Amino acid sequence: MLQLYFAPNTCALATHVALEEAGADYATVRVDFRSNEQRGPAYLAINPKGRVPSLVTDRGILTETPAMLAFVAQTFPAAGLAPLDDAFAFAQLQAFNSYLCSTLHVAHAHGRRGYRWADDEAAFAAMQRFVPKSVGACFELIEQHMLARPWVMGETYTVCDPYLFAVAQWLEGDGVDLERIPRVIDHRRRMLERPAVQRAFAAERAPIS
Amino acid sequence: MLQLYFAPNTCALATHVALEEAGADYATVRVDFRSNEQRGPAYLAINPKGRVPSLVTDRGILTETPAMLAFVAQTFPAAGLAPLDDAFAFAQLQAFNSYLCSTLHVAHAHGRRGYRWADDEAAFAAMQRFVPKSVGACFELIEQHMLARPWVMGETYTVCDPYLFAVAQWLEGDGVDLERIPRVIDHRRRMLERPAVQRAFAAERAPIS
Repeated sequence: MLQLYFAPNTCALATHVALEEAGADYATVRVDFRSNEQRGPAYLAINPKGRVPSLVTDRGILTETPAMLAFVAQTFPAAGLAPLDDAFAFAQLQAFNSYLCSTLHVAHAHGRRGYRWADDEAAFAAMQRFVPKSVGACFELIEQHMLARPWVMGETYTVCDPYLFAVAQWLEGDGVDLERIPRVIDHRRRMLERPAVQRAFAAERAPIS
Repeated sequence: MLQLYFAPNTCALATHVALEEAGADYATVRVDFRSNEQRGPAYLAINPKGRVPSLVTDRGILTETPAMLAFVAQTFPAAGLAPLDDAFAFAQLQAFNSYLCSTLHVAHAHGRRGYRWADDEAAFAAMQRFVPKSVGACFELIEQHMLARPWVMGETYTVCDPYLFAVAQWLEGDGVDLERIPRVIDHRRRMLERPAVQRAFAAERAPIS
């Protein structure tokens, strides 16, 4: 059975929702960021990068959200979560997901994880101040160029949708002007109507047992 | 015919080499970073992100290196550049490429493109000072955990190899201690022996006509 290592309010939500949409048989394992569990030896043995998510499969462990999303789509083809027989359309899907991981998520991370790119408190503060602008610019690019409707890729719901939904959880915390991105906000609202999203959300917010 | 928009010494080299390895019919178009052509209206009409590479196809335009590399592998299956019939192995390949774009390339970019994440000269200098450490840590993680031999994925050469080769061009400029990453250096040396790499390199270094 698949096991998804996650932490609440991270991009792991994307794969979590995708697994729900796919009807996969999986379990979740919560990594406790408050105790820095992601940097402890037990978790580093699973993912030496010390990040979530990780997906344990019977073949080995996968990391990186775009790779995991394509894996879920390919492993559960009946769910129709990606255009698996069309290399161009699949590449468009992957380009969207790649933009989220390499540009949008990175811009967001400068708010609280500046230590990845400097060792200077003043620089951390400068990065933090810039987050509304850099993350806002990413979402405006998505709004204007990358978000077909009703779903990211158009008529068909794909693994791009839970990924956009996951990063759109950060909008308010990142100080982005929501009025400039009405399509993104509408997408986020419609995602919340999906039972798979509701189930993943509820599971991530459950008290730690 | 495919058209690859590139600039020398960028990650576009990965897709350039992959197209050569695939035996694709393609042309290259050089984008002049010195005149900031990537931010001009003509190029923004091709790629509104203002970055290279972009790949123009008869179906439309693709961006983002991991997406383009998977597209090349899927479009030219006879070249055997990815395990297309094995979702887990394909996800491992994609996880490697995703790490390069979202973590290694981003760390490198803090050396000269700090304006993406702050608007303060002192912060730019702090980011620049940190590049040997952050980029070095990425390459050490690759060295220790992600680089099978002889190629990234093991016995079979894949699209991971030109991507690693492309970012390994930045090692000396980023001040990385080469003695800590002998596998990476050996990989870079062996890549240079491949005719496809030699052809792509020569084409990128040709004088502008």
